[in-house]
Amino acid sequence: MKILITGGAGFLGQQLARALLDRGSLRLAGGEAKVDRIVCFDQGAGALQDARVEYRTGDIADPATVRGLIDRDTAVVVHLAAVVSGGAEADFDLGMRVNLDGTRLLLDACRTAGHQPRVLFTSSIAVFGGDLPAVVTDATTPTPQGSYGIQKLVGELLVADYSRKGYIDGRAVRVPTVVVRPGAPNAAASGFASGIIREPLAGVAAILPVEPATKMWVASPRAVVGMFLHALELSPQDWGWNRSINLPGLVVSMEEELAALREVGGDAAVALVRHQPDEKVLKLVRTWAANFDTARALAMGFRADPDFATIVRAYIEDNPTAIKLPGVRRSA
Amino acid sequence: MKILITGGAGFLGQQLARALLDRGSLRLAGGEAKVDRIVCFDQGAGALQDARVEYRTGDIADPATVRGLIDRDTAVVVHLAAVVSGGAEADFDLGMRVNLDGTRLLLDACRTAGHQPRVLFTSSIAVFGGDLPAVVTDATTPTPQGSYGIQKLVGELLVADYSRKGYIDGRAVRVPTVVVRPGAPNAAASGFASGIIREPLAGVAAILPVEPATKMWVASPRAVVGMFLHALELSPQDWGWNRSINLPGLVVSMEEELAALREVGGDAAVALVRHQPDEKVLKLVRTWAANFDTARALAMGFRADPDFATIVRAYIEDNPTAIKLPGVRRSA
Repeated sequence: MKILITGGAGFLGQQLARALLDRGSLRLAGGEAKVDRIVCFDQGAGALQDARVEYRTGDIADPATVRGLIDRDTAVVVHLAAVVSGGAEADFDLGMRVNLDGTRLLLDACRTAGHQPRVLFTSSIAVFGGDLPAVVTDATTPTPQGSYGIQKLVGELLVADYSRKGYIDGRAVRVPTVVVRPGAPNAAASGFASGIIREPLAGVAAILPVEPATKMWVASPRAVVGMFLHALELSPQDWGWNRSINLPGLVVSMEEELAALREVGGDAAVALVRHQPDEKVLKLVRTWAANFDTARALAMGFRADPDFATIVRAYIEDNPTAIKLPGVRRSA
Repeated sequence: MKILITGGAGFLGQQLARALLDRGSLRLAGGEAKVDRIVCFDQGAGALQDARVEYRTGDIADPATVRGLIDRDTAVVVHLAAVVSGGAEADFDLGMRVNLDGTRLLLDACRTAGHQPRVLFTSSIAVFGGDLPAVVTDATTPTPQGSYGIQKLVGELLVADYSRKGYIDGRAVRVPTVVVRPGAPNAAASGFASGIIREPLAGVAAILPVEPATKMWVASPRAVVGMFLHALELSPQDWGWNRSINLPGLVVSMEEELAALREVGGDAAVALVRHQPDEKVLKLVRTWAANFDTARALAMGFRADPDFATIVRAYIEDNPTAIKLPGVRRSA
C-alpha cells in the first residue's frame, strides 16, 4: 500500500515516515497492510532516504497538485502540512490558504479517488481557548482564540463530515505541544517550550518569553508519532461518529522544564535561559489550555510520556549531534 | 446607512427588510442610524417594493459579485442566503459552495471594505447533533450530524475569527426551526413542522413524516426577526469574545402542534394531516436537539414566543389570503 504524508519533509513527518518504515506494515481494515511506498509531500525534500520513500514538492493549496497526490493505492493519508500558530496569526491569508483551503483540497482529492482512504488529520490543543475550565475534558467546547486554532477546528469539522458521508475514513487528533522539537525554531508561538531545553543543550542561549509558572500540555515526538500510528490502526467502530479526540500529554510548567534541564545539564545549562516577557506570545499562550482529562483517548488506548525527565532523555538519545554543552548526562 | 441582506428576497429576508423599513433606524455604535437603503441580494427579486429597497441578483459564490455588494456605506450585513438542510445533504457540493464558500467570500468582502461592518450570521440549531444531553445549554459542544450543520458551524467559526481580528463586528445566532413558515414548502428537512399547520389552514392535505411525539425547538417568524434586530443592536461589549448564541424558542411536539391546529381549524383541519413516516427525514430529525436552556441569550435580552397558540394566531393574522379552510377562527 501507499501512504501519503503531507508535510512529510518536516520534523514530525520524517519521524512518522521512519516509524512506518521500521514497522513495515499497518493494521488496517483488511489486516496487516505492507508499507510499499511513502509519498512525502512538502515544499522540499527531507533527510530520510529509503527506496520506499518518494519526495514530492508543491503547493498544498493548488488543486491540480493535490489531486495528483492520491490514487487508488493510497490507502492512508496523514495530513501534517500546516502554517503554525504564530505564522497563521501573522499572515491571515496564508493561514487560510494552507490550513483551510489545503485541507479541503486534500479531503476532496480523497473523495474523488473514491476508495474511502483512511485519513489522519493532525489538529491541535490550540482549538481550546477563551473562558476555559481548570481541566479541559472531552466535553469542553473548543472556542479557539487564534486563527490557527480556528482553521484546525474547521479542518476537524470537514473530516467529520467527509467521514459521515463515507467519502473518507477520517480521524482527527488534537496534538499537545510537541516538546522537545529538534532543529531550528519555527514560527509556532509555543516554540519556547522546546527552545529552553534544546538551545542550552546545544550550548546556545534561549529566551523564556512567559512567566516560569506558565504550564503547558506537552508530549514528546516519540509519544506523538506512536499515537499517530495508534490513531490510524483503530477501526472506524473504535472511533464511532466522533472523529476528533484530545490526545494524552503531560502538564509541565516552565519551571519544571528548567528543573529537568538542570538535572541533565547542570546550572550552566539553566544559566543560558533568560526570562524576557514577550507580550505577543503571552497573549496567545494565556488563551491555551494546560491541563486535560483525556478519558476517551486513554480508554481508546492512546498513551503519552510517563514524565518530563523521560522526554528530555529521549531528546538527548535521539539527537546526539545536537548536544554540545559540556558534561550533559546522557542517561539517568 | 446601507444594509445588505443576502437571501433578501427569501421569506425571512423580506420580513426583516419590512421590519427595518417600519423601524426606519437601527441603534448602532454611533447612535440611531437611519435606514437609507436596503440591498436585497438573492437569486431573484422579492415582492416587497419600497424606494429604499434595491434588489440585486447573482451567485453568492462568485467572488466579483460578492465584492460588489459591499461598500463603505454598508454599515450592516445580514447573511441569510443558504442552501437549507435537506438541500445541503442531497447536494454536498452545492452546500459547500453556497454555505461555506459564499459565507467566506462575504466575510472577505467585508474585510476588504475596511470599515468593520456589523455582520449578523444566521446559524442554526442544526449545529447540534450526535449524543446530546436532554437539555442543550450554552456549554454544549456543537457536533453537527449533517452537512448543513457543519457548514453553518464553520461559518460561525469564521465570523468569530474575523471579529477577533477586527475585520468585522460579527455575531452569529443559532435560529430555532422557524414555524409557521408561509408559502410553498422548501427543501428543509424540518419543513413539515410548518406544513402540518400551513397546508390544512389552506384546505390542503399535509404529511407528518415523524412520530407525533417528536419534539422540536421552534420560533415564529415575528420572534426571529425581532431577535435578528436585537442581535444587531447589541454592542460588541454585550457580545464579548463569544460571538455565537443559541436563540430562545419553544419546545413543541407535533401532537401539540396538531392540538393548536384543532383549536383554530377544528377536526376538519387535523383530518387533513396524514402520518406517513419518512426514514430520510427521521434520520436527520432524530439527531436534532429539541430542548434548550438559553440562559445567555435570555440574559442578553433575546425573547421568543410565549406559546405555540400565539404562533399559529400570528400566522393567520400575517397571512390572511393563505387561509382557505372554512370556519378558521381568526382570533382567540
